[in-house]
Amino acid sequence: MDPESWQLQARKGQDVLTNSIPKQYLVPSHQLPPPTQKNVVDFPRKSGLFTSKELGITELSASELVQEMKAGRLLAEEVVKAFLKRAVVGHQLVNFATEFMAEEAIARAKELDEYFRKTGKLVGPLHGVPISVKEHIGMKDRICNAAFVAWVEKTTDEDAILLQYLHKAGAVFHVRTNQPQSLMHLCCSNNITGTTLNPHNRTLTPGGSSGGEGASMGFKCAPLGIGTDIGGSIRAPAVFCGGYGFRPTAMRNPAGGIKVPFPGQESIRGVVGPMASSSIEDLDLFQRAVVDQEPWDMEPSLTPLPWKRVKQDRNMTVGIMWDDGCVRPHPPVARALQHAKSKLQAAGIKVVDWEPYKHDHGWEITAALYFPDAARSCLTLLESTGEPIHRLTTWAFSYSRSTPLTISENWDLNEKREIYRSEYHTLMKQKGVDFILGPVYPGAAAVLGESEYWNYTSIWNILDHPAVSFPSGLFVDQNLDQVDRGYKPRNEVDEREWKKYSPERYTDAPIGLQLAGKRFKDEETLAAAGLISEIILPKKEKARI
Amino acid sequence: MDPESWQLQARKGQDVLTNSIPKQYLVPSHQLPPPTQKNVVDFPRKSGLFTSKELGITELSASELVQEMKAGRLLAEEVVKAFLKRAVVGHQLVNFATEFMAEEAIARAKELDEYFRKTGKLVGPLHGVPISVKEHIGMKDRICNAAFVAWVEKTTDEDAILLQYLHKAGAVFHVRTNQPQSLMHLCCSNNITGTTLNPHNRTLTPGGSSGGEGASMGFKCAPLGIGTDIGGSIRAPAVFCGGYGFRPTAMRNPAGGIKVPFPGQESIRGVVGPMASSSIEDLDLFQRAVVDQEPWDMEPSLTPLPWKRVKQDRNMTVGIMWDDGCVRPHPPVARALQHAKSKLQAAGIKVVDWEPYKHDHGWEITAALYFPDAARSCLTLLESTGEPIHRLTTWAFSYSRSTPLTISENWDLNEKREIYRSEYHTLMKQKGVDFILGPVYPGAAAVLGESEYWNYTSIWNILDHPAVSFPSGLFVDQNLDQVDRGYKPRNEVDEREWKKYSPERYTDAPIGLQLAGKRFKDEETLAAAGLISEIILPKKEKARI
Repeated sequence: MDPESWQLQARKGQDVLTNSIPKQYLVPSHQLPPPTQKNVVDFPRKSGLFTSKELGITELSASELVQEMKAGRLLAEEVVKAFLKRAVVGHQLVNFATEFMAEEAIARAKELDEYFRKTGKLVGPLHGVPISVKEHIGMKDRICNAAFVAWVEKTTDEDAILLQYLHKAGAVFHVRTNQPQSLMHLCCSNNITGTTLNPHNRTLTPGGSSGGEGASMGFKCAPLGIGTDIGGSIRAPAVFCGGYGFRPTAMRNPAGGIKVPFPGQESIRGVVGPMASSSIEDLDLFQRAVVDQEPWDMEPSLTPLPWKRVKQDRNMTVGIMWDDGCVRPHPPVARALQHAKSKLQAAGIKVVDWEPYKHDHGWEITAALYFPDAARSCLTLLESTGEPIHRLTTWAFSYSRSTPLTISENWDLNEKREIYRSEYHTLMKQKGVDFILGPVYPGAAAVLGESEYWNYTSIWNILDHPAVSFPSGLFVDQNLDQVDRGYKPRNEVDEREWKKYSPERYTDAPIGLQLAGKRFKDEETLAAAGLISEIILPKKEKARI
Repeated sequence: MDPESWQLQARKGQDVLTNSIPKQYLVPSHQLPPPTQKNVVDFPRKSGLFTSKELGITELSASELVQEMKAGRLLAEEVVKAFLKRAVVGHQLVNFATEFMAEEAIARAKELDEYFRKTGKLVGPLHGVPISVKEHIGMKDRICNAAFVAWVEKTTDEDAILLQYLHKAGAVFHVRTNQPQSLMHLCCSNNITGTTLNPHNRTLTPGGSSGGEGASMGFKCAPLGIGTDIGGSIRAPAVFCGGYGFRPTAMRNPAGGIKVPFPGQESIRGVVGPMASSSIEDLDLFQRAVVDQEPWDMEPSLTPLPWKRVKQDRNMTVGIMWDDGCVRPHPPVARALQHAKSKLQAAGIKVVDWEPYKHDHGWEITAALYFPDAARSCLTLLESTGEPIHRLTTWAFSYSRSTPLTISENWDLNEKREIYRSEYHTLMKQKGVDFILGPVYPGAAAVLGESEYWNYTSIWNILDHPAVSFPSGLFVDQNLDQVDRGYKPRNEVDEREWKKYSPERYTDAPIGLQLAGKRFKDEETLAAAGLISEIILPKKEKARI
């Protein structure tokens, strides 16, 4: 193809998006904040463009919305319309959507209302809950490009299995969201629908790869979203934008119908999981709604583990990981951890220090396994159209060796991974640590194009531990979060990450935390994170927006 | 190494065996049946060398033995001594052992008796049950050669995780058993401890790769044994020798400490599982004893599914697979299936025909995944000593392509496997079939060196369905099982297998059947097989030996 042809192809994806935007919600550009305004997260409340009911609806959690609909105080139709309006405005501000599905979503909401009117019952636990969906999660008869120009016209025959279960549970899908080229940046930029920005600070990335979802949660374009995560792609964007994200243990949520350039790669399993705008409870609601339907009956490779109802239990030991021993977290992250520790101790929770166990070794295994084919399956796709390769794509590919691994090398890495998992698990048992609380990323979010260090999140992928990311309730503070000029970085990577920091570069960034549990202790990890979140961020403090 | 050096190496393994045999049990050769006598299974009863108590003990099931010890009617010490005696004689007749552990086993049994005497309680659900163990399942401070001359001096630091759990449950390990070169024959011959024979007919193989275990079960050298299975290696030897075998769904039993030449291969997962001399109930007892201890706490990659207590349920639909569409079963196997069908129907069980679904396609995926490295890891080991490569090793290696798969090719096969699993599962649901009853192998056992067709068992490995093999109660009959001379084989493989049959070649061979259930329905599959076994082989008929 000649140089322009990829652009013509990409245009088709842009057209899908443009034609899908429900025009009635578009705000004239002169009413929008100027492009130089970094923080746009308060725009819905300050602009006067939203009714108080619309604001009220979009600031509720999914659980609260369901309660309101159950009580007959809200209709699914008005709920989805409020979120659609907020999503369109959000898209104008941070470019997070790849396709709106306004008509279908409203029709679906009306159907739900009609069902409720007739029966007095909800369709399911997610009755009328608008959910935004990362684009590479296939939808029947819609294009699923997974951010590759080569796939810009590829449609999907049926809804991804997860979406089928969510639909049965009453969900309403109203918007599909952006993702980075290759799906392997903790950032969110591609050659089709461009770059998504962080609503808290538009010079920052919303994170990635579920960056559109991060922005959707941060701007409250939906109470729940769906991301995918093989190295942090749910957890980083969730908290970069002030929201919540959950990476379940692999093989609990159905992955069928999610498009990736390397199906059949099983050494590190990508997972699909929920993101939420306002509570950990909603992450659990999502999981319950799916797993209660026994998805292993449609996807037999899943583990047939019912979703347990777990009560919060204050009798737990939380290990705090201040630093992974490789890259020192930036001052705001250190402050948030210190804040969490104080609050937890004050609340009587047992807190100990967690010494990271060979995270550098974990990363070595991880990095070699991300693109064991030397990224050839991705490169082939990219080269087939000649679309420009982004710097962070090259960055991600550089993790892999320059030639494909042999099968035997892949086996060696699998075995190392198994040994590492076993050692890590044993250590947690020996130390009596139930959960590990630590950073999500070295910084509170990342400047656009700069997110290069994955291992605060990817360590839980290689270990296959469930992990929840959630806001600390704190934001980068120009006074409190001064650069520590005396710090001597311990290695090149540490230096690279440390140099990125100054408080001015991260103005208004929310600071997130991450809690990891033991393998398959998904329910317990969510319950513990819920308790911790309530302790460090009491409900009243939540209403910063 | 020069041509003789591998033999010097191999001798070390032979010496381990020879030195370990408890001499007091050895029968002078003139008292043994002549080498030309094919069937030696009745020797313990007919020889007059065993007391009636010894015969009685060794003909009990594990469950019955535990009951007797619980009631104080038997001591663990007399139990293990009886089995040791029978095992030594069995070894003289069919060469099934690689190492006896008489002293340790007797000491352990005394310890158990002492515990019972003091407390009146059993140590666990396997209190005093002698268990034979396939050699490549590592034992602390013992050599674990996995049938490779190269490893003939390699010791193991600790007991395999499974053995640790069984020990806690009260098991007594008294003998380790033989396996074929490469661990990948449905036969049992290697360059260290030689060839194991089938006690029902010493011109037949006991099957493999857990062939030593097959013989151990068939000659009742232990009530329970432990095999491993990546293509039929538990199920084939179990029934070739008239016993019982269970391949659980992968990731239910702990695999840590089992030595294989290709750790880290995860595309088709080998599993470890129980074999039993006399009942399906014992297979369930074994599983319960292990899984009740929550082995995922030591091996975090396991699926944390408790072992359910499942009652037999006559309200089930059994699909009978008469033929896999590729290789027609020999007349005895067809007769046993017909027999089972009649008995099941007479008992009011719903029976339908099961049309095999693309078993040739299943085999294509399987065959390519057994040695995706073009068997190089195995060949390297073999070539390092120059030990001769057996015909069936070359045969197994020939499944693989001549050059190693690329990572991408491996991924494609993984994806095909997933699709095939999903399609097979869907079909079972659509047809309302809960379990599939079919052959274990084209023949009732195989003539030594001839077992070449794996797909009646390996199909359940690629699908990862649990499967139980058990005796039909029938044996090859010179009159009833005539060759069907009118049959026109449908392809070369079918012709090859068909030509192997004549009733004279399989005199006295027990005919086994196999029941497969849906993925992770392990408990239900064992319960159903237990019910079917009781229907087609009432208890009184069992006492043929």
